Amino acid sequence: MHNPRLKLKLVIDDQDTLLGPGKIDLLTAIATEHSLSKAAKSIGMSYRRAWLLIQELNDSLKEPVLTTQTGGQSGGGSELTPLAYELISLYQTLTEEAEAATADTRQRLAALMKVD
Amino acid sequence: MHNPRLKLKLVIDDQDTLLGPGKIDLLTAIATEHSLSKAAKSIGMSYRRAWLLIQELNDSLKEPVLTTQTGGQSGGGSELTPLAYELISLYQTLTEEAEAATADTRQRLAALMKVD
Repeated sequence: MHNPRLKLKLVIDDQDTLLGPGKIDLLTAIATEHSLSKAAKSIGMSYRRAWLLIQELNDSLKEPVLTTQTGGQSGGGSELTPLAYELISLYQTLTEEAEAATADTRQRLAALMKVD
Repeated sequence: MHNPRLKLKLVIDDQDTLLGPGKIDLLTAIATEHSLSKAAKSIGMSYRRAWLLIQELNDSLKEPVLTTQTGGQSGGGSELTPLAYELISLYQTLTEEAEAATADTRQRLAALMKVD
């Protein structure tokens, strides 16, 4: 790969990890799939891990990230709360800000890497 | 904790992870301990994992990160190469740039969290 453009993965850390790519990918998949189990499957994550990540988010945030609807024609599902959409949006903003601020330094880092 | 100041952990990603807190902590410990095994022990990392992280760095970079000295009074040891010091320095710069650029957004994120 020539001139690798190094990507930045941000992990927001309190004492444990509050927010990182895993949780954001899961929330984004729930927005599309409207179901925790389908969302987990769509990103190759076990249902158990997906459930744990949602619990961690709910434990650290002032409001839950999912509304669970039971019954109905679709057999129930999960929808993101407004807070969850705000998290996705803030994480996207953080990433864009950090990427813009570090572009030169990432180029200097890329210059130390093998070109293959 | 009141007004948590969310910390940012940066992971520099090519196809695999090139550089993150684990590798930087290990390199920094080697600078102090002058030995891979002592450095790993000092940060609670297994020798096997430390060795693998060094191999990953050496595989992705144009030059190795360690010079290994055999023999001598101390029974040999490991020293960082100039490239390794450059990595530590660039990672520190990246972190400072990203933290400065995201301070406001991290505050907005902190405001969504429970106060405990």
